[in-house]
Amino acid sequence: MTTGAPRSHGNSAMTRWLRPPLATLRAFGGRTNADPAAAHRETVRLVALSDGVFAITVTLLVLEIRPPSGDQNLLHGLLALWPSYLAYAVTFLFIGQVWANHHVMFDHIRTADRIVLLLNTLLLMVVAFLPFATSVLAEALRSTYEQRTAVVFYGVAFAVTALMFNALWRYARRHRLVREATDSEAMTAIGSRFLLALVWLTVATLLGALIPALGVVLIVAFNVFYWLPIRGESPRPQP
Amino acid sequence: MTTGAPRSHGNSAMTRWLRPPLATLRAFGGRTNADPAAAHRETVRLVALSDGVFAITVTLLVLEIRPPSGDQNLLHGLLALWPSYLAYAVTFLFIGQVWANHHVMFDHIRTADRIVLLLNTLLLMVVAFLPFATSVLAEALRSTYEQRTAVVFYGVAFAVTALMFNALWRYARRHRLVREATDSEAMTAIGSRFLLALVWLTVATLLGALIPALGVVLIVAFNVFYWLPIRGESPRPQP
Amino acid sequence: MTTGAPRSHGNSAMTRWLRPPLATLRAFGGRTNADPAAAHRETVRLVALSDGVFAITVTLLVLEIRPPSGDQNLLHGLLALWPSYLAYAVTFLFIGQVWANHHVMFDHIRTADRIVLLLNTLLLMVVAFLPFATSVLAEALRSTYEQRTAVVFYGVAFAVTALMFNALWRYARRHRLVREATDSEAMTAIGSRFLLALVWLTVATLLGALIPALGVVLIVAFNVFYWLPIRGESPRPQP
Amino acid sequence: MTTGAPRSHGNSAMTRWLRPPLATLRAFGGRTNADPAAAHRETVRLVALSDGVFAITVTLLVLEIRPPSGDQNLLHGLLALWPSYLAYAVTFLFIGQVWANHHVMFDHIRTADRIVLLLNTLLLMVVAFLPFATSVLAEALRSTYEQRTAVVFYGVAFAVTALMFNALWRYARRHRLVREATDSEAMTAIGSRFLLALVWLTVATLLGALIPALGVVLIVAFNVFYWLPIRGESPRPQP
Repeated sequence: MTTGAPRSHGNSAMTRWLRPPLATLRAFGGRTNADPAAAHRETVRLVALSDGVFAITVTLLVLEIRPPSGDQNLLHGLLALWPSYLAYAVTFLFIGQVWANHHVMFDHIRTADRIVLLLNTLLLMVVAFLPFATSVLAEALRSTYEQRTAVVFYGVAFAVTALMFNALWRYARRHRLVREATDSEAMTAIGSRFLLALVWLTVATLLGALIPALGVVLIVAFNVFYWLPIRGESPRPQP
Repeated sequence: MTTGAPRSHGNSAMTRWLRPPLATLRAFGGRTNADPAAAHRETVRLVALSDGVFAITVTLLVLEIRPPSGDQNLLHGLLALWPSYLAYAVTFLFIGQVWANHHVMFDHIRTADRIVLLLNTLLLMVVAFLPFATSVLAEALRSTYEQRTAVVFYGVAFAVTALMFNALWRYARRHRLVREATDSEAMTAIGSRFLLALVWLTVATLLGALIPALGVVLIVAFNVFYWLPIRGESPRPQP
Repeated sequence: MTTGAPRSHGNSAMTRWLRPPLATLRAFGGRTNADPAAAHRETVRLVALSDGVFAITVTLLVLEIRPPSGDQNLLHGLLALWPSYLAYAVTFLFIGQVWANHHVMFDHIRTADRIVLLLNTLLLMVVAFLPFATSVLAEALRSTYEQRTAVVFYGVAFAVTALMFNALWRYARRHRLVREATDSEAMTAIGSRFLLALVWLTVATLLGALIPALGVVLIVAFNVFYWLPIRGESPRPQP
Repeated sequence: MTTGAPRSHGNSAMTRWLRPPLATLRAFGGRTNADPAAAHRETVRLVALSDGVFAITVTLLVLEIRPPSGDQNLLHGLLALWPSYLAYAVTFLFIGQVWANHHVMFDHIRTADRIVLLLNTLLLMVVAFLPFATSVLAEALRSTYEQRTAVVFYGVAFAVTALMFNALWRYARRHRLVREATDSEAMTAIGSRFLLALVWLTVATLLGALIPALGVVLIVAFNVFYWLPIRGESPRPQP
């Protein structure tokens, strides 16, 4: 099979059978796709599916919070669920960040090849897993023992999300799938930001293995730092 | 860091590392974004994610209703679930209102900065929490005790939704993120309507703390008032 | 308040406070909306939210099927769940029909006023309730008693869905919210088809109250009749 | 009823009553639809609903994983859930493939008639059922007995998905619903790829009936083979 040719000729029936069809290449591989509109449509589709998964995942988080059973005082029961509320808020805000940064990333990626598709699917797989990690953390905080394991489990889930993000961005940059118009300073800044998230969450997980409460505090601080605007960022009214 | 400059120069590596990348500013901050189409696309994306959360939240409400267990008369079991049906309908219609008004609001907001993104994420976080509050109310109405706490909890969830709405609208107006073409009478009317919702739901919650049934009646009345058209509003057939 | 005026003047502060803002009228009321693109966008939004609810509802159906518990033979346990599979398939195919016909309906409705919005929200409220009715039916078929109540409950849920459909279509036609280009024979045919669905499902429910199995058979037959193409309908290859 | 005529005349009232309205034909039948934009819009809608179902299904998978109960060591409890994690990842990656190939298929199908709609609804019905099959497999792998039944059940669910895919593609090709511009070699390649998936999953199911672990390995290998790029496929940077 001639690697560089846009269309292969003379393959045996066996090779053709095993080979993913040209249509797949044309749809998901940037090389043979000369039509920029089609390539754009491609990432639009990928982003739409990802948005769906983000929206559903944040909304499913609430299913992990069970109403208190009827034989206790309702107010006490509701207050005793504070770990669930905390974990709900932290995960919700984290996935909100992931959503926002996913859009920043795909504003720059002009085409998606098969590996981008696979890495994005793996990213979504980790994100969709977060409600389970959230539930594990909330239960451990409620029972006040074995918090170490739960905090590490939760931190690892967050850190792996950041890891997939970095893998996706680095792959896209290395294989020149980003738009040429993108200013390289901006791209480096995006990369730095993604890398900082990975470092932060990894450190939070490691410290959480020593002092669970510290791990939780660092993950909460991560949300605050990444959500709050910094000086000079918020838009001024146009005169 | 020069606040007003569209692109900053000469930052130290440390500052660049900690700073959210320019791309994020460009994507989510109105100031540096000179392209109106891009800004519009921005709110389109935000609205699409929000619509997803609204659609999923209303559909998840039904999961809180559990079929009666097999050892009782099925008809009695189904009838005994009336508080679940009531709470389902009230929350469903309320979120329908939130959806409709969210669109009214974002028809006027021309660009979303980081704070708008954060406030919108907080709004969605409260909306996605409503199925839990609904479940708590339905269980309390079924067990006919401790209704006070459940009604207040439910009312607070609704009132906080209205509060986030008001915060989002006021922020957008104060920071001039609304379209200039928007007629200021209409904007004041929208603001009044959102404020009335907040006042109404706060009063309903407070009265519900005294007389639970009254709180429920006021929340039901809120839905009726905000959904039913008033005289002169419904369109006439064009001649 | 002058009914026919596109913008009202001289209202007292009180009236303005209580009145839904002009923006809402402009967004959701056909009368004051002179821009056909905006009106179209309006129904596009409504259809998008509805599609979300349809997609989520059909996907949630599977959550009602619980894996058999470990202490019995797995094959027997899986086979014993046949009522769940049947109810899953029937409800899934029914909601698929509702989705397809919802699009047919909104291909003809050119603008959505507040009542259309309300009727559509009520329709979605009934559709999103169907997983619960499905679960009730499946459990009753499994326990082989009290099937009468469950079949009637299921049939009523389907019939109310058809009722909301008819209410929406009739309201839109009576208030001339359908496109003028629509051929009136086609509109009558759509109305007849919707009415037939209501009659069929009502009869199935009533007969199900007498002979439960007959009710189920009639609802299954409804799906077959409405999904299968009739002679002469399927497209021929273009020569 | 004259088969080929774009509009039928002189039908009795009874025939008209029972017949799906012309609007449905116009909307979903390619024959009477002369407007290519409308036809395209048609498949856009179908694809959007399908994407919704794919996104929701993968996200619901995590609900099948229950946090370990509090009376055991949390780390052991989390590790003991490995069959759930494995089944989660395999099903997630499989549905990701189905999504990608669904888009490849509908990039070529230019119009959807009623049978396409029905076949697509049946495909979605099988896909939305996968979380249940996944849950059954995970429970059986955990309990280490009766794995044969669970593996076969899981394999059949995957194979039926592939079967519906093949049915949809073959129907569309036989009835010439694919775009004329599509190169026939590519179409044959797509068909071969879909057929290979069906054969592979059927063989995996049959061998799983003999040796359950082998069935699981073959299904895992299916994911690897269909996701990983082959030599020469990944795009090269444009010089």
